[in-house]
Amino acid sequence: MIRVAVVGAAGYIGGELLRILIGHPGVEVAAATSRQLHGRPVDGVHPNLRGRTRLTFCALDRLDHYDAIFLATPHRETMTQMPEFLRMAGTVIDLSADFRLRRTETYEQYYGVPHAAPQLLETFVPGVPELHRDRLRGADRISVHGCMANAGILALVPLAEAGLITGEITVDARTGSSGAGARAGSENLHAERSGALRVFAPTRHRHEAEMAQATGLPVRMTATGVEAVRGVQLVCRAAITDAADERTIRAAYRARYGKEPFVRVVAHRRGLHRFPDAKILSGSNFCDVGFALEPGAPHVTVISALDNLVKGGAGNAVQCLNIRFGLPETTGLEFPGLHPN
Amino acid sequence: MIRVAVVGAAGYIGGELLRILIGHPGVEVAAATSRQLHGRPVDGVHPNLRGRTRLTFCALDRLDHYDAIFLATPHRETMTQMPEFLRMAGTVIDLSADFRLRRTETYEQYYGVPHAAPQLLETFVPGVPELHRDRLRGADRISVHGCMANAGILALVPLAEAGLITGEITVDARTGSSGAGARAGSENLHAERSGALRVFAPTRHRHEAEMAQATGLPVRMTATGVEAVRGVQLVCRAAITDAADERTIRAAYRARYGKEPFVRVVAHRRGLHRFPDAKILSGSNFCDVGFALEPGAPHVTVISALDNLVKGGAGNAVQCLNIRFGLPETTGLEFPGLHPN
Amino acid sequence: MIRVAVVGAAGYIGGELLRILIGHPGVEVAAATSRQLHGRPVDGVHPNLRGRTRLTFCALDRLDHYDAIFLATPHRETMTQMPEFLRMAGTVIDLSADFRLRRTETYEQYYGVPHAAPQLLETFVPGVPELHRDRLRGADRISVHGCMANAGILALVPLAEAGLITGEITVDARTGSSGAGARAGSENLHAERSGALRVFAPTRHRHEAEMAQATGLPVRMTATGVEAVRGVQLVCRAAITDAADERTIRAAYRARYGKEPFVRVVAHRRGLHRFPDAKILSGSNFCDVGFALEPGAPHVTVISALDNLVKGGAGNAVQCLNIRFGLPETTGLEFPGLHPN
Amino acid sequence: MIRVAVVGAAGYIGGELLRILIGHPGVEVAAATSRQLHGRPVDGVHPNLRGRTRLTFCALDRLDHYDAIFLATPHRETMTQMPEFLRMAGTVIDLSADFRLRRTETYEQYYGVPHAAPQLLETFVPGVPELHRDRLRGADRISVHGCMANAGILALVPLAEAGLITGEITVDARTGSSGAGARAGSENLHAERSGALRVFAPTRHRHEAEMAQATGLPVRMTATGVEAVRGVQLVCRAAITDAADERTIRAAYRARYGKEPFVRVVAHRRGLHRFPDAKILSGSNFCDVGFALEPGAPHVTVISALDNLVKGGAGNAVQCLNIRFGLPETTGLEFPGLHPN
Repeated sequence: MIRVAVVGAAGYIGGELLRILIGHPGVEVAAATSRQLHGRPVDGVHPNLRGRTRLTFCALDRLDHYDAIFLATPHRETMTQMPEFLRMAGTVIDLSADFRLRRTETYEQYYGVPHAAPQLLETFVPGVPELHRDRLRGADRISVHGCMANAGILALVPLAEAGLITGEITVDARTGSSGAGARAGSENLHAERSGALRVFAPTRHRHEAEMAQATGLPVRMTATGVEAVRGVQLVCRAAITDAADERTIRAAYRARYGKEPFVRVVAHRRGLHRFPDAKILSGSNFCDVGFALEPGAPHVTVISALDNLVKGGAGNAVQCLNIRFGLPETTGLEFPGLHPN
Repeated sequence: MIRVAVVGAAGYIGGELLRILIGHPGVEVAAATSRQLHGRPVDGVHPNLRGRTRLTFCALDRLDHYDAIFLATPHRETMTQMPEFLRMAGTVIDLSADFRLRRTETYEQYYGVPHAAPQLLETFVPGVPELHRDRLRGADRISVHGCMANAGILALVPLAEAGLITGEITVDARTGSSGAGARAGSENLHAERSGALRVFAPTRHRHEAEMAQATGLPVRMTATGVEAVRGVQLVCRAAITDAADERTIRAAYRARYGKEPFVRVVAHRRGLHRFPDAKILSGSNFCDVGFALEPGAPHVTVISALDNLVKGGAGNAVQCLNIRFGLPETTGLEFPGLHPN
Repeated sequence: MIRVAVVGAAGYIGGELLRILIGHPGVEVAAATSRQLHGRPVDGVHPNLRGRTRLTFCALDRLDHYDAIFLATPHRETMTQMPEFLRMAGTVIDLSADFRLRRTETYEQYYGVPHAAPQLLETFVPGVPELHRDRLRGADRISVHGCMANAGILALVPLAEAGLITGEITVDARTGSSGAGARAGSENLHAERSGALRVFAPTRHRHEAEMAQATGLPVRMTATGVEAVRGVQLVCRAAITDAADERTIRAAYRARYGKEPFVRVVAHRRGLHRFPDAKILSGSNFCDVGFALEPGAPHVTVISALDNLVKGGAGNAVQCLNIRFGLPETTGLEFPGLHPN
Repeated sequence: MIRVAVVGAAGYIGGELLRILIGHPGVEVAAATSRQLHGRPVDGVHPNLRGRTRLTFCALDRLDHYDAIFLATPHRETMTQMPEFLRMAGTVIDLSADFRLRRTETYEQYYGVPHAAPQLLETFVPGVPELHRDRLRGADRISVHGCMANAGILALVPLAEAGLITGEITVDARTGSSGAGARAGSENLHAERSGALRVFAPTRHRHEAEMAQATGLPVRMTATGVEAVRGVQLVCRAAITDAADERTIRAAYRARYGKEPFVRVVAHRRGLHRFPDAKILSGSNFCDVGFALEPGAPHVTVISALDNLVKGGAGNAVQCLNIRFGLPETTGLEFPGLHPN
């Protein structure tokens, strides 16, 4: 059994890590920390875990040493505490944003503060199994991407790698309310947020930097909060080369994802479920990716969707753990999602 | 023009008062107070009023004297400030709970504190036009009922008055999230409240005391938060006399509501819209009331619905104002609601 | 491996059976029928199963013989075809309503037609593991209750059995839209059904007959469609004996459910998750049951919740299969539900 | 009083026309037709009109002559019947798509059939008061744009006219379920549509042709169904000239919309309501338009929102009527929308 700890376990990503890890046959959840709730039972804030665990939250200073530690901790704070975390575990899987961007200038530009541990940046492997599986097998430091970033990276990298995209990419991202976290403010009260179409980041959303880094292409992103608790959907547009047609593009995705357990290419000519929709992905570790071509014009529209707390966070992190520890990659992540939902 | 002020105008009931009063041809909104936002434009927190008003919030101590003042102020505080409010206006229309219950013991039992102004209780007329229209014509102090209470009173009083109900009434109330107000806590975050079926008051909800007072019958009430921003629906059950049949009951409602502008009896044998549903009432001042009888058994199920911020609050208060000042009763309250919505 | 077939697999209950059975390590799904879609891939209508199955629907007349067969078939039709189904499989698990009610008069009263196979009624064991586990171990014919009925039976039977309830029970049931099935009519279009509080059965809902049968007490039920796709919540009220207090009631539930894997007693004094809420149960096989007592009065309010397609249908049926075939009872049913959701 | 008839009055646009016209002080609704429901009361399908009208639907052949007639009739059929409609009324206001596009080739390209009345195309004035007010004053034939098209035209024309946009425009449109109409099929059942993020038109949505025609620029549009009943929001992107900065753009909008009663420019630096959101526009005739600039890059993101059934249909049509008949332009259209909602 892999002995793990979850830091920041009272939040939504933390809770999702607990849900998956408690159901994981190869893992023992040895500790779950919360600054505010230490001493309290885990199922008080994560009521879906009633009857599944008797764990109580502990304070951070009660941690000792683990095979792996998951960090569901705030941006900007995580980097200052990272040296400490690294001493606590053989493998550190970081879900904060602090070790996602390789260039400190980019970090500063998007997060507004200088990076506190630039020397560690290079030691982290990006937690994208579909792109970095081999490196992840031996990785002791893994940095998982943001929810929208992961959806964008999986949507775009196959086309970028194949050289099919020319010029910049625009991304229109839609996200549910759980992305704002369990401590969101009054702007996320139900009466304000319900049914909203809230353009909260018309430009310069932080996740665009991660997509730009992974694709090597300029990315402009807009983010809108839509009516959903879970779920991210991206509509990406790009000009493509003259050579790119439906077959080329489908081949690029198939080459990358033909054997992937958690990426499905969803692009049908008709039917109710033609393109990726986050509605059917809640709780699952799938990222669905689809595309459509403008008839007679060199443009592609790529659509991707995932559950922001699973493939956009906790599930992706556990997939990395499985790879790192040599377990079957889908262990603990078999839930396929619900329909209707 | 009737010169009015709204105290507590930054909240949801306050905003709804502003919406209705600003569109009211016989009213001038002279002041709107907010403790936190004085100096700020009203349309900053009530974005639906953009382009409709240039009003800014003021502090309470900037009020002078008005024809009428509306109090959208907290329970327990309102009663201590009431003497001051009474000096500010010829007519005071109170939307807090503090002057709804006639007996101080009942108040203390449900609100947990002694009443601070018991001598004023008798001076307030209940703000239920359908029951107290004549008294309201000359009333200078009006206390508007709570949202669920008003729905229950309008549903039950005709049957209680007609002596058709025997024994206690049970009320199952469902309510949207706006009832919790603009300052609701983290339990009302969208991610927590969305899609919830939250039994927040299994027994002893405060509004049951108002219904018991109005009907003279024992009432047991359960309150559940459902997925909606606006809207209250009540399902009430009672044993009825042997004489009570569909015709008797329909007659009791018709006698009370046949000429009422804002109460509709909705009880059909079939169709999509057989019974009252708050879904189509958002923004309107209607309270729909319907009923069904158990075949062969002396029981009635009464269903009522309204928009908690309108007929359950601000709209009802403006209807009282219209009566008090001799205006056509529907002035400013003509919006019929939307379908679909 | 248990070889199973699902009849009526294109509907919502059928799809949920497929989801659970495909992920079940002891089961092989050998056939899935659909009248309309035979020849088409299963994941066309159940897109959550993409990448999990290559099964296609077949016609009913292509079935041969199976260890077990699940019937997600319409009421009234199932009873006429039952002799045929019984020849197809060692174990028949029926999710239609046709073999739930023991008395043919009751069936006729609620379903409007005479029962077509009264001689078979006694041969079916009710699919309620919590009440009939021993009989289910040897049962070849199992009839699973309706979604709201199951929630009511699990809520009420422990108190009824313990003799704590006096007199009739009233049940206020709320249900999501998936209960109307994949072939629901235009009254279930999103624009009509979204945000609705639709009292579609003010009296005489069919499920009340199942609750009355299981508790031996008179039950009056009202059913309201609320904004949700999945989920049923019941608020039940009953007068109780003078001896019944919180301890007695809790003891009655503990005696029945202390060791049950899928029933949790949820009744807290405070907190966000005091009582059962279907919101956190989507996809899970839990039925949560809670209660509250009126201070100083002999009344209980019992609240229960479940996912209508899982513990209210497909999951419960698979739990019965596990019992019948001697597998660990939770096999294939481990998904705990999501929070937030 | 202007005597009007509504053709196709049982649908959602038809119902919204009735809601507005019945509340309009200068209009008498003399007839409302429905093919399926003639003889039935209007408030049976439009329950929000209970108590507001006793009108019943009539068959089309019962119409005689009216001051104005509104056509909420299907695309492709309307053009064949237009000669007949023109004989029925002095002024025809068409809400179908058939007379929106000036070029028959474009119509055929987007609607798949040749235009049946090309000779009439030039006789229709586009129903966009903000652009064609003077022509509308004398117009007897008015063609109102589609919901998303109107939102796009109002968002983009000021910038296009001012020559600030260079190159093509991409539009990401999100729409609620009422846009699919009251006869939508099973793909719009609540269980399927609720919470969906359904990209139903990745390319070539018909409304893009209307935007291209109005702006004179190439438009690429993607349309996604989101969780809402009413509401359309567009996120439009375009490259802009080097000269275009925040001041220039704001000036372009102010020049066009400074005196418009129903277009508000909503573009704030911070706050909950920074950009247009359809959530607060239900029932109102506003179109809100906002924009954001990429720091240091010649790109603009324009956001617009409206209620698809009001400013995207019925309300806009009534605004045209008011202009045509010399009434104050806001008559009958004063409802400001609700917050929260």
